[in-house]
Amino acid sequence: MNGAPDEFHLIRRYFAPLAAGEPGALGLGDDAAAIKPADGHSFVVTADTIAEGVHFLPDDPPNQIARKALRVNLSDLAAMGAAPRAYTLALALGRGRDEEWVAAFASGLADDQQRFGVTLIGGDTVAAPGPTTLSVTAIGEVGEGRELTRGGARAGDHIWVSGTIGDAGLGLRVLRDELSSGDESLDAAAISAYRLPEPRIALGNALLGLATGAIDVSDGLAADLGHICEQSSTGAVIELPAVPLSEFGTRLAADDPAWLTRLITGGDDYELLFSAPPAAESEIGALAERLALRITRIGAIEPGSGLRVLDHAGNSTEIGSAGYRHFQFDR
Amino acid sequence: MNGAPDEFHLIRRYFAPLAAGEPGALGLGDDAAAIKPADGHSFVVTADTIAEGVHFLPDDPPNQIARKALRVNLSDLAAMGAAPRAYTLALALGRGRDEEWVAAFASGLADDQQRFGVTLIGGDTVAAPGPTTLSVTAIGEVGEGRELTRGGARAGDHIWVSGTIGDAGLGLRVLRDELSSGDESLDAAAISAYRLPEPRIALGNALLGLATGAIDVSDGLAADLGHICEQSSTGAVIELPAVPLSEFGTRLAADDPAWLTRLITGGDDYELLFSAPPAAESEIGALAERLALRITRIGAIEPGSGLRVLDHAGNSTEIGSAGYRHFQFDR
Repeated sequence: MNGAPDEFHLIRRYFAPLAAGEPGALGLGDDAAAIKPADGHSFVVTADTIAEGVHFLPDDPPNQIARKALRVNLSDLAAMGAAPRAYTLALALGRGRDEEWVAAFASGLADDQQRFGVTLIGGDTVAAPGPTTLSVTAIGEVGEGRELTRGGARAGDHIWVSGTIGDAGLGLRVLRDELSSGDESLDAAAISAYRLPEPRIALGNALLGLATGAIDVSDGLAADLGHICEQSSTGAVIELPAVPLSEFGTRLAADDPAWLTRLITGGDDYELLFSAPPAAESEIGALAERLALRITRIGAIEPGSGLRVLDHAGNSTEIGSAGYRHFQFDR
Repeated sequence: MNGAPDEFHLIRRYFAPLAAGEPGALGLGDDAAAIKPADGHSFVVTADTIAEGVHFLPDDPPNQIARKALRVNLSDLAAMGAAPRAYTLALALGRGRDEEWVAAFASGLADDQQRFGVTLIGGDTVAAPGPTTLSVTAIGEVGEGRELTRGGARAGDHIWVSGTIGDAGLGLRVLRDELSSGDESLDAAAISAYRLPEPRIALGNALLGLATGAIDVSDGLAADLGHICEQSSTGAVIELPAVPLSEFGTRLAADDPAWLTRLITGGDDYELLFSAPPAAESEIGALAERLALRITRIGAIEPGSGLRVLDHAGNSTEIGSAGYRHFQFDR
């Protein structure tokens, strides 16, 4: 197909070197890898796919596509409080992806493997006549029974979120020439948020024993808070003015408050959203300082069910379709 | 896109029930699953993708597509001697795959989960404008350090293979209307070999401590024996007349001996190919009887490197491109 390179050649040349850090990966030269967690630890396993045209654009730099595929999975590990250990990669190479593309792709993986302490232990490459898709299964480690889940939030807990919200969605709109801040550096920051999210590994780890419920924001802040409520059998309230925005987001919301609901229902933020008892406030403040990371209190867990969103005047506001649907994106 | 169903709905209705057997999967309602191997055991991890048009045809029954995706991965676990435990599934749903298709697909997974004792612990579903691809990462368990590898074959070892070779390739040709045995039941058996391989889990487990090298035949008998030789730094010799064939294959080879080399270079057999010392012969015979499974000695490991293939007269014969390339299939 379309002159795509030979699978064995790709594995030997570009992917096998990525397995060097994990002896149990057997250099990708066997049917499978053999690994075990450290004593007293469990493995945490997550699988996420990114697809051309949805999570990345055809002309995005291949090394950044690779890193995003890995990072969206590491973000799920972070939301469980797990330390990254290993991953498998299934690469369906679409039209026009030649060996040069694969080389740049693999070098992106190498960079992030070093950055996050994670090693490739298996995978598969097939040629696909359609768009390119990348499926990663990431494996992390966490002390047995200590993992953060979505199910432990209790009425009265505060709700916190790291970083700023909505920038990835803005970046996608900029890349599609649908939007610009008029300021090159703000546009570039939004594009970077879309292409290269930052998994909050250190924060997730620090939240073990501190957060009662946690999730990473991939479907949109509102939808993901809904997931915590559902798993915890609680309701929640968000104060819209408290939601942390970048300068780009702040400017848009000042012009047109409707942007606020767009920003909290966009996807792909990969920030950590978590609940914690009020008594944890000072510890969370200290944590934000230690990690040099913005962590903002945006609301509270309530009895009951459902999500209330309060505007500047403290009135409930409708946010419409609460979230992001892979099958309905931007329709 | 094309009226494909909502991802959350699909997960809740069809995939979450498949996670019931593994408490650590948290009902697919969290960011990740938390699992650990039994004491004294390691996890064995493998990832394989199957793609429409290559490993299955667009009109293949969805429940069989699902089972094939799972089984090609379980076959890799079998080749390591591991017992299946859990898997993740990344499903890129192509054109024309509606909710009815997904329902049939999930019911195929349910059947094979029960049959092989394995549970879904995570995954992702995206809509793809191109063909459907399925990426599974399977996790099995094996006693720590006991896993079978490709790297332990020694000169003088016998080479054995389970089942019959080449039938999946014949089945694909029948499905493409390129070939028929003229006998409906033989055609059906070949189609079944292509669509629904049988992972040799019990055999793989029984080979722990017995086989010196093992692999599952996915790239073709010749290519996969080449992988054992490469990892073991040995050569090998196969006696073509000894290679076990189905009645369909036997008839073809009787008409035209060139079929023999086609059959051992086709892919998708998912039989186990392994080496064992000559002293293991009687034990392997007993094993074949106990498992009611054909296990045939087809050659020997030799010093040196490379693969020699001997014909009926004991002469070396050329087999051409030794194997199967996903990027060059049937060109």
